[in-house]
Amino acid sequence: MSDQPVAPVSPTPAFEPPYYAVVFTSTRTDRDPDGYADAARHLSGLVRDIPGFLGEDFAHTPGGPAISVAYFRDLAGIEEWRRHPEHLAAKRRGREQWYEQYVIHIARVEHSHGFART
Amino acid sequence: MSDQPVAPVSPTPAFEPPYYAVVFTSTRTDRDPDGYADAARHLSGLVRDIPGFLGEDFAHTPGGPAISVAYFRDLAGIEEWRRHPEHLAAKRRGREQWYEQYVIHIARVEHSHGFART
Repeated sequence: MSDQPVAPVSPTPAFEPPYYAVVFTSTRTDRDPDGYADAARHLSGLVRDIPGFLGEDFAHTPGGPAISVAYFRDLAGIEEWRRHPEHLAAKRRGREQWYEQYVIHIARVEHSHGFART
Repeated sequence: MSDQPVAPVSPTPAFEPPYYAVVFTSTRTDRDPDGYADAARHLSGLVRDIPGFLGEDFAHTPGGPAISVAYFRDLAGIEEWRRHPEHLAAKRRGREQWYEQYVIHIARVEHSHGFART
């Protein structure tokens, strides 16, 4: 089972500001990696149904830190996702089992731009 | 030579808001990986001297996306870093050689919190 729950080939594009970014940086324990991967995949599907969800990026250095960034149009979507029962249950399991450390930064995007090779 | 220019074992901690996060998501070409790694390491040292720089996180899925998040106390520090001659030169090389795509999101952090296993 893959350890990479969300691994888009391309970065999520720049959106028209303002919008919000939820930056989640973490290091994991070596406990229950399959449970983690299943939950991550499942949540990654659920969050797409939250109104105002725009997209997410994920990267994970093997044996090192992971960073996910989820983009939302407004704080209401972030709050709805924060209170989602399956998300709450997963966070509880995360603190009990999966995460060594994590930090969440909730930020209002004021400027964005992108580059793509032509 | 390592392909991981910045790979902290632990996430950068939560700071007292407000502060700014510069989210840089990218996918790379297979060109000049040593040049990229050298430049990334060098810039990672230089940015520490920018007033208001707080820290950075980096993760890279092998063969997939990379995400770096740099934290600054204010926009003035971000602007100083954006105009730094060595940073400008590296960005030019990045567009010519290293990056397939990238997206930059500049965001004002309004809330942050962390968890650490005890």
